[in-house]
Amino acid sequence: MAPTDGLDIVPATRGKGWLVAAGQRVAVVDVEGCQVVDLFAFCAADPTEHLSAGHTRVTRRRMFPGVGEAFVTDRRRPILTLLEDTSPGYHDMLVAACDRRRYELLGHPDHRNCADNLAEALSTLGVDLNLVPQPVNLFSRIPITPAGDLDFQPAATRPGDRIVFRAERDILLVGSSCPMDLNPISGGRPTAFGVEITDG
Amino acid sequence: MAPTDGLDIVPATRGKGWLVAAGQRVAVVDVEGCQVVDLFAFCAADPTEHLSAGHTRVTRRRMFPGVGEAFVTDRRRPILTLLEDTSPGYHDMLVAACDRRRYELLGHPDHRNCADNLAEALSTLGVDLNLVPQPVNLFSRIPITPAGDLDFQPAATRPGDRIVFRAERDILLVGSSCPMDLNPISGGRPTAFGVEITDG
Repeated sequence: MAPTDGLDIVPATRGKGWLVAAGQRVAVVDVEGCQVVDLFAFCAADPTEHLSAGHTRVTRRRMFPGVGEAFVTDRRRPILTLLEDTSPGYHDMLVAACDRRRYELLGHPDHRNCADNLAEALSTLGVDLNLVPQPVNLFSRIPITPAGDLDFQPAATRPGDRIVFRAERDILLVGSSCPMDLNPISGGRPTAFGVEITDG
Repeated sequence: MAPTDGLDIVPATRGKGWLVAAGQRVAVVDVEGCQVVDLFAFCAADPTEHLSAGHTRVTRRRMFPGVGEAFVTDRRRPILTLLEDTSPGYHDMLVAACDRRRYELLGHPDHRNCADNLAEALSTLGVDLNLVPQPVNLFSRIPITPAGDLDFQPAATRPGDRIVFRAERDILLVGSSCPMDLNPISGGRPTAFGVEITDG
């Protein structure tokens, strides 16, 4: 396990939300390695405006922004800029957040899930929003095969790997330690992650 | 131009909505070829439940359903099953619908767009919904390069190419002749498309 000094630790299978001011930096750290973190970002002034995978892909003309490039909202405005990534670089914006219904279909109706973690985190920030955007599934390694299949692989992150963003406006940021333990994306054993928010 | 007998023709750059009953079949026909059609589907009983690209990908474990496979909603329930595809098979669920803001950024603020076409079509069906889900961009050819770039290519469809779906529940279906003429996806010249709805 990597050092956790200065990190706000979110326990395995749990989520948390933060108010991040424009210009602040956010580091998301996989403290034990092999853990997918579902990340969501909403504009503080109007949380119906949110980070959008589909708008980011067409704006960047890439599957995932490169270092120095911004994720944009559903109104095509920059919301987070990717500053640094010490992980092997696998991230996903194709797969919906796990939710109650996903685990019901898998025979585990009471399983923790990222959609409920999101709702709870927003509620803690005083926001009631019936919306689960496509998350940025940090560290999630799901390569696309030549036939177009999604190949769900264990995350390749090592303890202490981190990805760093700059907030481009005042945002509500939510991260969820993905509770999925019925496929290999987090190695079958969800673990904690850490967040560090610093002035830019 | 392919024969249009029996087709409900939607003019270039325009959209239209249809009520489709569970079990009915919907054919979407590219009458002149090389035209992207943005397709949206909502549950008639509760239009906040809609076809979801992210939920479909994880359910199918594929980038796009194969023949015989269903698209699912954001509540992971089948909504449309792909029955037949005579086109070269290129379709996109990665790129957000074009909208007013996209054309503003391109210097064409009054350009027609798929998001407004969707809102108008839903309004004609008596539905007021402030929601633009990720569309199924039929016939859109945007391969992903090995580096993860999106390569916007002209649609490869020939006149008369069609894709056929079966509605798995009563739905509101909306199609939009994508007005994008500032990149090559529809050959720089949007054209009409046709829809045929038949009992299963």
